This record gives sequence, C-alpha cells and structure tokens, in this order.
Amino acid sequence: MEIMEEAAAKPVVIKVAALCGSLRKASFNRGLIHSAIQILSEKSWMNRMEIEYIDISELPMLNTDLEVDGTFPPQVEEFRHKILEADSILFASPEYNYSITAPLKNAIDWASRPPNCWADKATAILSASGGSGGSRFHYHLRQIGVFLNLHFINKPEFFLNAFEPPFKFDSNGNLINEEVMEKLKGVPCSLA
Amino acid sequence: MEIMEEAAAKPVVIKVAALCGSLRKASFNRGLIHSAIQILSEKSWMNRMEIEYIDISELPMLNTDLEVDGTFPPQVEEFRHKILEADSILFASPEYNYSITAPLKNAIDWASRPPNCWADKATAILSASGGSGGSRFHYHLRQIGVFLNLHFINKPEFFLNAFEPPFKFDSNGNLINEEVMEKLKGVPCSLA
Amino acid sequence: MEIMEEAAAKPVVIKVAALCGSLRKASFNRGLIHSAIQILSEKSWMNRMEIEYIDISELPMLNTDLEVDGTFPPQVEEFRHKILEADSILFASPEYNYSITAPLKNAIDWASRPPNCWADKATAILSASGGSGGSRFHYHLRQIGVFLNLHFINKPEFFLNAFEPPFKFDSNGNLINEEVMEKLKGVPCSLA
Amino acid sequence: MEIMEEAAAKPVVIKVAALCGSLRKASFNRGLIHSAIQILSEKSWMNRMEIEYIDISELPMLNTDLEVDGTFPPQVEEFRHKILEADSILFASPEYNYSITAPLKNAIDWASRPPNCWADKATAILSASGGSGGSRFHYHLRQIGVFLNLHFINKPEFFLNAFEPPFKFDSNGNLINEEVMEKLKGVPCSLA
Repeated sequence: MEIMEEAAAKPVVIKVAALCGSLRKASFNRGLIHSAIQILSEKSWMNRMEIEYIDISELPMLNTDLEVDGTFPPQVEEFRHKILEADSILFASPEYNYSITAPLKNAIDWASRPPNCWADKATAILSASGGSGGSRFHYHLRQIGVFLNLHFINKPEFFLNAFEPPFKFDSNGNLINEEVMEKLKGVPCSLA
Repeated sequence: MEIMEEAAAKPVVIKVAALCGSLRKASFNRGLIHSAIQILSEKSWMNRMEIEYIDISELPMLNTDLEVDGTFPPQVEEFRHKILEADSILFASPEYNYSITAPLKNAIDWASRPPNCWADKATAILSASGGSGGSRFHYHLRQIGVFLNLHFINKPEFFLNAFEPPFKFDSNGNLINEEVMEKLKGVPCSLA
Repeated sequence: MEIMEEAAAKPVVIKVAALCGSLRKASFNRGLIHSAIQILSEKSWMNRMEIEYIDISELPMLNTDLEVDGTFPPQVEEFRHKILEADSILFASPEYNYSITAPLKNAIDWASRPPNCWADKATAILSASGGSGGSRFHYHLRQIGVFLNLHFINKPEFFLNAFEPPFKFDSNGNLINEEVMEKLKGVPCSLA
Repeated sequence: MEIMEEAAAKPVVIKVAALCGSLRKASFNRGLIHSAIQILSEKSWMNRMEIEYIDISELPMLNTDLEVDGTFPPQVEEFRHKILEADSILFASPEYNYSITAPLKNAIDWASRPPNCWADKATAILSASGGSGGSRFHYHLRQIGVFLNLHFINKPEFFLNAFEPPFKFDSNGNLINEEVMEKLKGVPCSLA
C-alpha cells in the first residue's frame, strides 16, 4: 500500500541527453543547450523533464579496430551508456560546410555501433550557424536518423542565424536575446 | 631552344590527392585507392596523372580554438598544404549511418578553413559499403562540395556493395575482383 | 447497456490512403499497393486497418492561380478531402531521376495548400524502381514530410530493384514474387 | 580568306534555355528570368550569350504510356528539341514543401527520357521563395542533376527570401529591387 502511494507521488521524469556539435569553448550551440536546461529548470517543467549535457570532446575518432572482443574504449563505453539511459535526445550544432560537424558525427557513429544505442528515442535539433542558420545540417541529420531509428520532432524547427545583428550571444557563447529564448522554449518542450 | 624542347618533353602531370574515410587497417576503401594508384601506374597513364594517398588519421578533431593567430596545428598545416598542391581529389569512403564518416568530414572541414584549400578542383568519389554501396553518402558529400566549390564528376558513379558474395576484397582490404577492377578504372581516369 | 456492447464490438479501423507516383497503367508501384490491400484484407488485419487507393491522375498541374476565393478545382477538393479523412498515408512510387515523380509531388503540393491536409499522419513508403530500388526518392520525400508534418515510419524501409531478375511483377504490374510479398507485409502493418 | 574573316566576325553565342518552376501568372521566379534576359541584353553581353524562356505549362503530366514507338506527344517533342539545342540551362523556381515543384520536375523528367536531352550542359539555379529563399530545393535539384549529367555552377548561389520586406517584386512578378538585380547578375554570367 505504501509502495503504491510512493509510486503515485513520484512522477516519471523524461531524461534528455543533449549533445553539442562544436568543440570550441564559447560555442553558441552549447549556449543554446545551457538555455534549454535553464528553461526546463523552471517550475512548470520541474520533475517532468530534465536535460543532461553530454560532453563528446574526449571520444577518440571512430575506428572499428578499437573495438576488441565486443568492448569499446572506456570513454566510448561511458558515452554509449549515457545515450542508452536517455529517453530523448537534443542535438545542438552548427552546420559545417553544408552538413554535420565531424565531432557530432563521430559521437553518433560510436553510439550506433551494435547494439545501436539510439533506437526509438524522440529527438529534436537546435542550430545556430551562419547563413540560413544551419538548416542544411538538419536534413542530413534527419536522414542519418532514419538508420538510427530516431524519431525527430517535425515542429518547431529551430534555425538561428548567429551572425546577423543584433548579436544573440555574449563572448562566452551564452544566449542573451529574449526573443530567441522565447522561440527556443518550444523545442525541448516538444520532447515531452 | 633547348628549354623549349625540354618543356615539350615534360608533360604536365595531374596530381590527385586521395583520401580514405575509414581509419581501420584493412579498409576496403583504402584498398580501392591502392587499386586506383595501380591503374594509373600503367603505361598508358604514366606521366599523365598520379595519385598520392593522403593519411588523415592523425588530424586532431576540428576545434577552431586550435587556430592561433591564423596558424593551424602542424598536422593540419601539412594536410592543408597537400590539398592545396593537388589538382584533383579522389574520395574513397564507406557510408556510416547513411552519411559521411567523421574522419573524412573532419579532414574536409580542416582544409576548408579560410583560405579554403578545396576550391575549383575536379573530384571523384569511390565507395565500398553495405546496402546500396554508399550512395547516400555520395549525395551528402556532393552537397558539401557546393560550399567547398569542388567540381564533382557526374559519371561514372562508383558504389560497391562490399558484403555481397563473392567477396571482392582480401582480409587486408585489397581489391581482388577483376570485374570491379575494370569498373573502377573509369573513375580516376575521369579526372584527366 | 446495448450501446456499450456495440461500441466494444466495433473496433476503430485505421484508414490508410495509398497514392501511387507513377501514372502508367502497368505500374509496379500500383501493384505494390494492390498487394498491400490484399495483405490487409487477410483475417488477422480485418477490421483493424484498411487501405484505400487514391487516384491522382486527374489532378491538374499545381498553379495557385486556380485557387479562387479559398476554393480549389473540384478534383483537388475531392482529393484533399480524402487525405484529410485518412489516418495514415502509404506512398508507393518509382524514383525518377534520383528524386520524387512529378505526379506524386503535384498531389502532395495540392493537399499541402492551407489548411495543410497531411499534418500528423503516420506514413510509410514503398518503392520499386531501378538501381538501388528508389532509395534516393525516399530521403527527398522524408525531407518534404518535415514541412508537411508527416510522421514517417523508420523501419522497415522498402526498396525494390524491379529490374533485377527474376522478374517480380507480371505484365500488368502485379507482384508475383512470394519473397517480396513477405517483405512487403511489414510496411503497411507498421502503420498500425 | 573571306570565309575566315566572316568566321572571326561572327562570335559563337551561348544559348541558355530558361525554365520557370511556377505556373502562376505573376510568378516571382519568371520575373527573375525576365531580369536575367534583360541583363544579358546589355551591350557587354550582346552576341555572347542569350536566354530563351521556355514555357513548360502545356506539357502533359509524365506518363510513359504516352510514348508510342519512340515518339512523344507533340508538346513534349518540341520541348525536348529546345533543351537539346540549348548550350546551358537556367532554372528559376520557388521551393514547394522543401523540394522541387511538380511542373519543373515534370519538364525535367520528360526531357530526360532516352535519349537524355540534358547531358553535359552548364546549369545555374535561381530561386525566390519563402524562408531561406528556396535553398532546400537547390540541393534536391543538384542531386537530380547528377543523373541527368548537368554541370551546376557552384558559385554564386542565388536564394532570395521573396516575402521579407521591402518587397522585391511588383504585383506582376517583376523584379523592382536594385540590390537584388545586382546580385542576380552574377548567375547568368557564370554560365559564360
């Protein structure tokens, strides 16, 4: 009886793993993740969804020769475990040369090695980049997601031209623009 | 007078830089590059075109924080120099998760940092992969090439299902199938 | 009391609208739709899901000048109504020149005119075509679906090389191959 | 002797066939073509390049059943002839639902029927559309062009957000903005 009451009192929290496709310290896209975390820490979302930022900078470059007897290098094992544990995925990344960045593709590929860690997770994309704000990268990532079996949110799509004035980020990559912050809200919330 | 004769005797050799998108030792795609090198070493091509295999395995993961006062890390500088010197490019790569591999995207992105080293080079793609032989990767790479200003050869397209029997490669990744070798010939030669 | 019993006895039937991207009479892809209809008419699926084939051959070529005071040409109105009424969508189409066929794109565009008739429907793709069986068309269609807000099934993907022997279709475009029929089953059923 | 002089006096004129992907009367993209024609009628380009606008609105929807004994319907024959005669191609089209419009795909597919009329022509793309100005359509068209064997100009890329103020077109679809006109110039001239 007591157990049931406790269960009722403890809501299921959706765990979102957030990955950033840029490694630079003052990345705008990491700034978007920090803002998304802040959004979900607000009262109305507390205990319903939480975002964990997953650092991918220490992963070795993918080389399947590094897989020995079905085990991966330690950083890869740890990363794969975090993806497996997550309910949903939030990618935030610039577009490099009209496509995905290498660090993000590398992380995706490591966690896709059998058994695939991505399958059946709801997924959203954020991008701050030049030009059309990273949209070309989104469609490449969505095609990748067909094989990974990710379920991408269609709407809202979030592209941000990061270089168009007024500046949206401070020199540390923190989002400082209220209008963008408001627009950003819809994306992590769509994963609920 | 002598100078002119010498000039006439010394034909211009097209220098092709070949990059492999897989880092594993017995990569089928590196095998394709070795076969392409062998094809161009045959008499009829001698002195007209030559392929240099460019190793990309030692490049650090792209992080623009590593660019200091307009200089790149030493391995990146060396790599960029080799791309700049090449007349044409030959990419050989598997498809990972319906797109480009991280090591290849990383190399491409480093050499694209201003000033862009890829501009105006004729380019061809080889891929040995599962399923449809890597075709999905080709179209992502071609989109990337629009920004880089690469000029891709349209025909012949070379996709090879590497896992369909009979086996096309030995355990070291060397191409051992005559029919594929014949089909392969058209690709590097299209760069002439 | 009686009402409740009736309700229990009458299960909700998922209505699938099926569109064929080829207009030729003996289209292989229309044959795939007929086979999918046959699959869902089997006992185990009866009363759970049903497919209606929607003819798109009589739609005029899209021209928004044909929209007058918010009304569409009669065939377009009828087509839009059928899409609106459907719960799920099944596209079956060849790939033409590495992309979507014009008749299919035309139908999609008409039903996307505001108010968008496609939104939030589960969707699957079948393709019988040359080469890699139409896969390039799938990813273009999936990108189109992001804007339409279609929810594509990721797995199974169904591509069929229609020209590789043994022949899979008879001269009327009917699927006559048991192995393909078996593989086909998974696709409409994934919409349940 | 006289013949040679005449030959020297009569420069080769590059013939560009221009197709518009929208059928509406006041199409912005047809407006772009008219402006491009105007640009090339200026003194410096006279006798070097000329653009012919090719109407595609009367082509029937592609259905290979309409090909009888290797002949096409009369409008298709005429259209194919015009494409064959052209040296270069200029596409101007809006993006519909993140991809190519049906009228344009239809025209492309008809002229691709064997023998392919598009092969080896230099090609450029213009687009005026909502959002990112039609860029998603460009990359779909470029993938189509790999099969057609079109040689797309990489730079400059021309995307125009047609709905962002100030208005760039009058109510007849004529381009009325000097800045855009200036930017437009680079595209047809890149075909020289």
